[in-house]
Amino acid sequence: MNVTSMVNGVDLDRLSATIDHVTAEPALARFQFRAGNHWVDGGYSRTTIQGFYGAGQEDTTRTEAFTVDTDEPPVLLGENRAPNTVEYVLHALAACLSGTIVYHAAARGIALDGVETTIHGDLDVQGFLGLDSNVRPGYEQIRVALKISGDFDDDQLAELANLTRYSPVRDIVTNPVPVAIDVARA
Amino acid sequence: MNVTSMVNGVDLDRLSATIDHVTAEPALARFQFRAGNHWVDGGYSRTTIQGFYGAGQEDTTRTEAFTVDTDEPPVLLGENRAPNTVEYVLHALAACLSGTIVYHAAARGIALDGVETTIHGDLDVQGFLGLDSNVRPGYEQIRVALKISGDFDDDQLAELANLTRYSPVRDIVTNPVPVAIDVARA
Repeated sequence: MNVTSMVNGVDLDRLSATIDHVTAEPALARFQFRAGNHWVDGGYSRTTIQGFYGAGQEDTTRTEAFTVDTDEPPVLLGENRAPNTVEYVLHALAACLSGTIVYHAAARGIALDGVETTIHGDLDVQGFLGLDSNVRPGYEQIRVALKISGDFDDDQLAELANLTRYSPVRDIVTNPVPVAIDVARA
Repeated sequence: MNVTSMVNGVDLDRLSATIDHVTAEPALARFQFRAGNHWVDGGYSRTTIQGFYGAGQEDTTRTEAFTVDTDEPPVLLGENRAPNTVEYVLHALAACLSGTIVYHAAARGIALDGVETTIHGDLDVQGFLGLDSNVRPGYEQIRVALKISGDFDDDQLAELANLTRYSPVRDIVTNPVPVAIDVARA
């Protein structure tokens, strides 16, 4: 009989085993994620995501690739076939903050009933258009509100808020990541 | 009769009109993008993307919301129901670099036949797990390769490579963005 200890949908026995493995052999914590993008037309493109390296081996659990499309709305000369790339950044950040709280709350035995997150980002397209070199192309600021329900007191609520420091996408957005770009003729 | 000048699927007449409008009234360049995320279970959540503000008004062209799901692979305690949040960052960055080159190439009259982009990001999950405070939660480095085909010479290829400086997601990932996070009881 398998008895698992699930909190917030997170299997605590497996989480504990993962932490033990990584503590014993830190190289197991090294992951490489990957994606490939194929341009279709204008702002419309398709990304394929499947393989990655992690926990000491190539992952083989995804039998099919995920496809993720991007487009722009008409005001940005697209046809609304998909969210645009800066909207995907908001998605990634909101989902990562929520998931980070959920996993770390589970590890602390704090059971959550719900997490609803809203996120806004302000951007001036003069930067993208190259019209004003004082305007950055990306977001000037992002605001996130997480509303959490569950079995916790006010001290634990403050602890939950502090857990967002472990969020990978929060780190990526708020701190510099080195990006090496190679452009070549096909 | 409508005669449009399309290059790379970008309508140059509309792009030129957009630049004229923004130059005359820079406030039209202000956009606010938005998303809402609903946590389901473990690392599984669903984001809804529909409305945004831009060009001086609320957009009303999207009659239905986009939904974007996130999950984790089994090795990160999920069930592979969707890409994870750091994979979405790679998607956003690859698609944005490609789209930025496509739009700016069109504005310069450079016709492209294809853009294929591969992207890798290295991440050590000791940071997310909180096991080593010297390890950042997010990507340590990202590498991108764009292979472009089209009607351009070597000088123009160098110009295309330089256009990635206008990419909003490149800016977001390589430079700090202020993120304000509010966590409250639902």
